[in-house]
Formats: sequence, structure tokens, C-alpha cells
Amino acid sequence: MAYSVTYTTFCITRGSSYGGDHDRNECNLNNVRVNGTPTRPANVDRLKQSAAAATTTLTAVGENGCISRERIRQNIPTKKQFVDPHRQGLMIEGSVGYRQTVVIRSNEVGPDKTATIESILNLFQETALNHVWMSGLLGNGFGATHGMMRNNLIWVVSRMQLQVDHYPIWGEVLEIDTWVGASGKHGMRRDWLIRSQATGHIFARATSTWVMMNQHTRRLSKMPEEVRAEISPWFIEKQAIKDDVSEKIRKLDEATYGNSDLKPKRSDLDMNNHVNNVKYVKWMLEAIPDQVLETHQLSEITLEYRRECGSSDIVQSLCEQDEDGILSDGVKRSSDIGLLNGFSLASEIIVGNDLLGSLDTMPVRYTHLLQVKGEPKNEEIVRGRTKWKRKLSTFPFTS
Amino acid sequence: MAYSVTYTTFCITRGSSYGGDHDRNECNLNNVRVNGTPTRPANVDRLKQSAAAATTTLTAVGENGCISRERIRQNIPTKKQFVDPHRQGLMIEGSVGYRQTVVIRSNEVGPDKTATIESILNLFQETALNHVWMSGLLGNGFGATHGMMRNNLIWVVSRMQLQVDHYPIWGEVLEIDTWVGASGKHGMRRDWLIRSQATGHIFARATSTWVMMNQHTRRLSKMPEEVRAEISPWFIEKQAIKDDVSEKIRKLDEATYGNSDLKPKRSDLDMNNHVNNVKYVKWMLEAIPDQVLETHQLSEITLEYRRECGSSDIVQSLCEQDEDGILSDGVKRSSDIGLLNGFSLASEIIVGNDLLGSLDTMPVRYTHLLQVKGEPKNEEIVRGRTKWKRKLSTFPFTS
Repeated sequence: MAYSVTYTTFCITRGSSYGGDHDRNECNLNNVRVNGTPTRPANVDRLKQSAAAATTTLTAVGENGCISRERIRQNIPTKKQFVDPHRQGLMIEGSVGYRQTVVIRSNEVGPDKTATIESILNLFQETALNHVWMSGLLGNGFGATHGMMRNNLIWVVSRMQLQVDHYPIWGEVLEIDTWVGASGKHGMRRDWLIRSQATGHIFARATSTWVMMNQHTRRLSKMPEEVRAEISPWFIEKQAIKDDVSEKIRKLDEATYGNSDLKPKRSDLDMNNHVNNVKYVKWMLEAIPDQVLETHQLSEITLEYRRECGSSDIVQSLCEQDEDGILSDGVKRSSDIGLLNGFSLASEIIVGNDLLGSLDTMPVRYTHLLQVKGEPKNEEIVRGRTKWKRKLSTFPFTS
Repeated sequence: MAYSVTYTTFCITRGSSYGGDHDRNECNLNNVRVNGTPTRPANVDRLKQSAAAATTTLTAVGENGCISRERIRQNIPTKKQFVDPHRQGLMIEGSVGYRQTVVIRSNEVGPDKTATIESILNLFQETALNHVWMSGLLGNGFGATHGMMRNNLIWVVSRMQLQVDHYPIWGEVLEIDTWVGASGKHGMRRDWLIRSQATGHIFARATSTWVMMNQHTRRLSKMPEEVRAEISPWFIEKQAIKDDVSEKIRKLDEATYGNSDLKPKRSDLDMNNHVNNVKYVKWMLEAIPDQVLETHQLSEITLEYRRECGSSDIVQSLCEQDEDGILSDGVKRSSDIGLLNGFSLASEIIVGNDLLGSLDTMPVRYTHLLQVKGEPKNEEIVRGRTKWKRKLSTFPFTS
């Protein structure tokens, strides 16, 4: 098939053909170099290799000699909607933001009966797409506007940051707000807030940065004026994470923990036939030692996207404990421990040296790297950083 | 931790301790031997090995010396509810059945933008648990009634059959109906219907059979009178699949296709710390050749549960093409082909011998086996049977 639509909320990018005229390893979506009219054609062979069933035209000739009929999202409105009773969605913030009420389902919780990070990311994707759906701007179902479609542009995500203060439990009723804002001249920011419907308490916050890519040339693109005219009325200043420090994530060279030979399965592919972003996060977190996963919960994750992962790639998930997350000097003051772990450990300090000893060796921050194993070198898919705090629901048994 | 609650809608069973007094390999939930008061204690070490964070008591001492606070489903009603506005659920069928309206989400569809079989199974689990939640009978959040909890009983599924006529697409609004009925003297049947809300057209039908197990002894149990008094008023005769023929699934000995060394990942575990049933189905379907998955879609799946899969088990997924699903005698009449593939292929027959040739070798029925690799022998987890029909949306490219 000639080309696939790569948009998903967390869709990533075909790194090696970005920009075209600079070193592929310097490709950094956080410091976007935007090119005008492309001068180098896309590597069609390469694209074909990972291209997929998703098409924006009625029929497309596939590699296997089949024609796929277009299947897109059902009932795309052509005018702005204010309420979506089926999805329990409504427009907020002067009718430019979107709020959806959701209930955490049984399959969205893990062994501790709280929502998994994957479920939260899926709900972000869902609400973002529903927001664009409600706007009346949706061209093809994948988040691209009519103006973007006329310019063969798709959204690609470059950065994502999520902070979770409290994990909702099974059956919990949540309100998820999402809205967009400007990010530089040619980018867009999308934020989310997750709130308990019952108490109004904020459970999680997230922000993400998006840029446009020409779906044929695979180059990043300026935002055309007609697209700016479509989406800029929706931009608001409000930021879910106010003190977002865009400190770059270092590249891992040596990793303490790692999973190799991860292969995308058929069921890992999303509607664009790409490995879904949520799968990336799963792979990342699987590299964290079991001991940490049992006693700690993820409180923050930051992702920097570099390139996509094709269905035939072999992936490596590396992670390394950050030095500032280690209590290295033997016995620490309880205030330090409390600070590092995000809540007071006063009641546990009295347990004695065993606890202090185990905490001393407990890492709380990790740097991550997902890369495609390749020759002559590996290529980065995503860099990540995670912060972990001790679970409130488990504490040492002292009898 | 002492014991975990093993109920999920598709929760499976600790096969090796079933019954206790008969050969473990003869354990067959489809022909249940019910024991009265257990005479053999459960193998606590074995249980501990796969036990989990889910508890029915306020605190439980874990193997790692931790205390887990109980986290159960939020807001469990003590009286029957008729409407659940948050989940868009309501009681139907004289207020003993349950209907929930759902919209297919972006992460619930696969590359062809139709709901995946995993999504459908997850929605079945969700609606079943919401049905019990609405009934006011829910004791612990996992589907067990108050009477079952007093008797230390949990539900285990023994059989499941699903027929899909049409896969809903992304954004499609569905009504899912579910209800229960008697199955023999001590079992329960649970059925589902999935319907397009817009047209009323039925997309899928499913039925399942459940029995009770003592959560401490791990033996199957008779249905106590107090439990029968609770649940029998909810039983109705209606059957989603009327011509359900309970033909037993043969045990695979030699397999044409197979995936070995499947290991449950942390993220595959559900709230009971067990490998979720949906993961079983994923493993089963991954053994089907890619060529079949690309051109065909699952139209029916039947599962017979034998034992559970623990988090440390190594699993093998085997499948073999059934002989009655092969067009073996060279050229077939078009009516035969249409019959086997579930719809008329008249328009494609004219394409010529290439098509007939490829159809001739295309299997449409498979027998499956998931087993735990073990010494001295492998133990069965689930037997399965699948039927596949050619996708309507893909057909050979003829230019």
C-alpha cells in the first residue's frame, strides 16, 4: 500500500526520513527544523515496508494485491457539537475544551485494582480524538483537520509528560478534560486533566507536543495558514503542568536493566498498523525490576519520540537508575527519604535499620531507551524518564 | 498472601486441585463432578505461589511481608438499581437482564478499524460485572454474591462460545445485553447479545457456563440453597445461541502451527493477579498463520477451560487446521465455497483459477490448545475451536 496515515494521539514518526538534509541521529522533534517544499522524495521502499491497511483514499493497492475498502470512524460530524450523549462528552472552557465522563472498567485495572498507566494513556488518546470529532474539524477520523488533509499533513507527537498523583480504582467515575494550545509557531500543545467526579480532586495531569508531517514526503512541515485558521481558535493558554521543565532526556549508553528481542505482535498493532504508543510504555516499564514495581508506583513519565517502530522491528528496552534517585550514603534523615519518596515515612522509620537499609538501595528515578536493533547501529524509538513513589497501600509488615 | 479471589468473568480454575479424588487429567468442567464437604485440604504452597494482591479481608499478610489494604470496586450498591447513568446501563427483560450502551473506542479497534476480539471479550466481562453490580447482590466486587461469600464460593467459567456476524467499527454505538439462566442443577449460564444501536442489527452472540468453587479448598461446589435463593430469581430461559451444540473439542496431539515459550508479563495480569482470559484468546489467535489472519476474520470461537495459568508458567499455543475446513479436491463448486466461507463468492469466482487455487488451500476451521509446559507432562489450560470466514472488505486485486 502506498502510504498509511500515521496519526494516532501517540503516533510516532519515521525518524530516518525527517528533515532529510541533516544527520538522522540529530533528528530531534523537541527542536524542530521545519523544511519548506521537500526536495528529497520519501524512501518509498522503506515506507512500503511498514505501511498498512489504513488509507485516506477509497481504495488503495496493497502489497498483497488486495484492495482495502476504506473504513473510517462512524458518524463524523461536519459541524461543531456541544454534547455527545453516547460518550458522555461536552464542550467546556468557552466551548473550545472537551470533557468526558468515564468509569474505570474491570479490564482497565491491574492486580492492585487501580487503573494501569496503559489505561490512562488509552483514555487520553480516546478523549483527544473525541475532542477533534466534536469540533467538526475532523477530516479522516485520525485527528487531521480538513485543511491538513488538503495539504497531506498528519499529526506526529514529539513529547509527552504525565504526572499521576493518585490512581483511580475500579468503578471510579472520572472527568477527563482535554484542550489544545500553541507550541511555538508551528506546533500544538495538548493537555489533559483527570479528576474525580465525586470530589473534584485532581488525579493526573499531562501535556504533549505535536507537529505536522507531510504524509507523502515524511518531512516535518510548517503549519499552513489554512490549518492555522482552523485550529488556532481552539487554542487556550491554560497549562495542565505549569512547571513543565523541558530538560532533555540523556541518551542511555550502558543500561543496568534491559529486555531484548521484543517483537511487535499482530495484536500490538493499532488501526494504523503501527505499534501503538501504549505498547512502548509497556515495554519501557517491563524493564523496571520487579522489586520496584511491587512496592512503588509510577508518579511521572516523560517521553521523547524519535522514530516509529515498524511491525518487523526487533526492539530493545533499556533502563538505568538515575543517581539522584539513589540513597547512597548509608543512613539518611527521614526528611530526605520522605522527600524522595513523595510522602512522609515517619511511621516506618521507627521500624529500624532493615527498612532504612532496603530504602537506601531503592531507586526512584529511571532513564529509559527503546531502540530498534539494527546494523550498523541501533536507532532510537523513544527516550523516557520515570519517577516512582512508594505505594501508600503497601508498607512493611512489622509483626 | 493466603488466598486470592479468582473470579473474573473469564477467570479460570486451579485445575490440579479440582475434585481432589479423581485423576487430575480427567478434570472436566463440562461434566462436573461436584463434591460435598471437602476431605482434602488445598495445597497451600501451590496456592501461595500464584496468589495475589486481591483479598476479601481488610488486610492480608503477603509473602513479601507486606500488608495490602483492601481495594475493591467503588460504590457497590446494596439494593437493586434500575439505571446506571455513568455506565449508561439499565435493567431490561422484566428488570432481570442488563443492557449497556457503549461506543467502540480508538484503542479497541485493530488495523482494519473494527473492534478486536479482545475488545469484545473485555466488554462482555465489563457488562457481566456491571449486571451483578446493578443487582445489589454483589459481595466483593468480583461477581460473587453475599451468599457465595458466606460460603467462601467463587465463580469459575467452564465454557464460552462466541459468534460474530459483523465486527463493529470505530465509533459505532452498541447495545450489549446480558442475562443469566440455569445450567444443570448447580451451574449458571450467562449470555450476551451485541446489537447496533442505530439499526438494531445483531452483531454478535455469546453464551458461557459457570460453576462454583470453594476458594479455600479449590474444589467445585454444589450451589448452596441460600445462593440459589439469591440468583435463581434472575434466571431467564432466553438463549443467545439457540443451536448451541456442546460437541466436545478434541485434544490436540500434533500441531501444525504453534507458538512456544509464551510467558505472562506483569501487564498481562488482571486484578486477581492471574493471566486474564483475554490474553488466552490472544495467545490462541497468534498461532493462526498470518495469511489467514490477513484475509479472514474470526466468526466463531468456543473455549473449554481446564486450569488456570500462573504468572510463572511457560505456555504453548498450538493449533491445527480441521479437515472439514479444507477444500481439498482441487476445484470446488462455488456454492460449496460460499457455504464454507459464510457468504457468496459469486463475484470472485469469475476471477479465475488463481482464486480458486488459493481458496482451495485456505483453512477455515482450527482446533486449539493452550498448555503449560511441564514435567513429566504438559497440562491443558484451554481447548479451543475457531471458525473463520473471508473478510468482506478485502478481495483479490484483479487489474
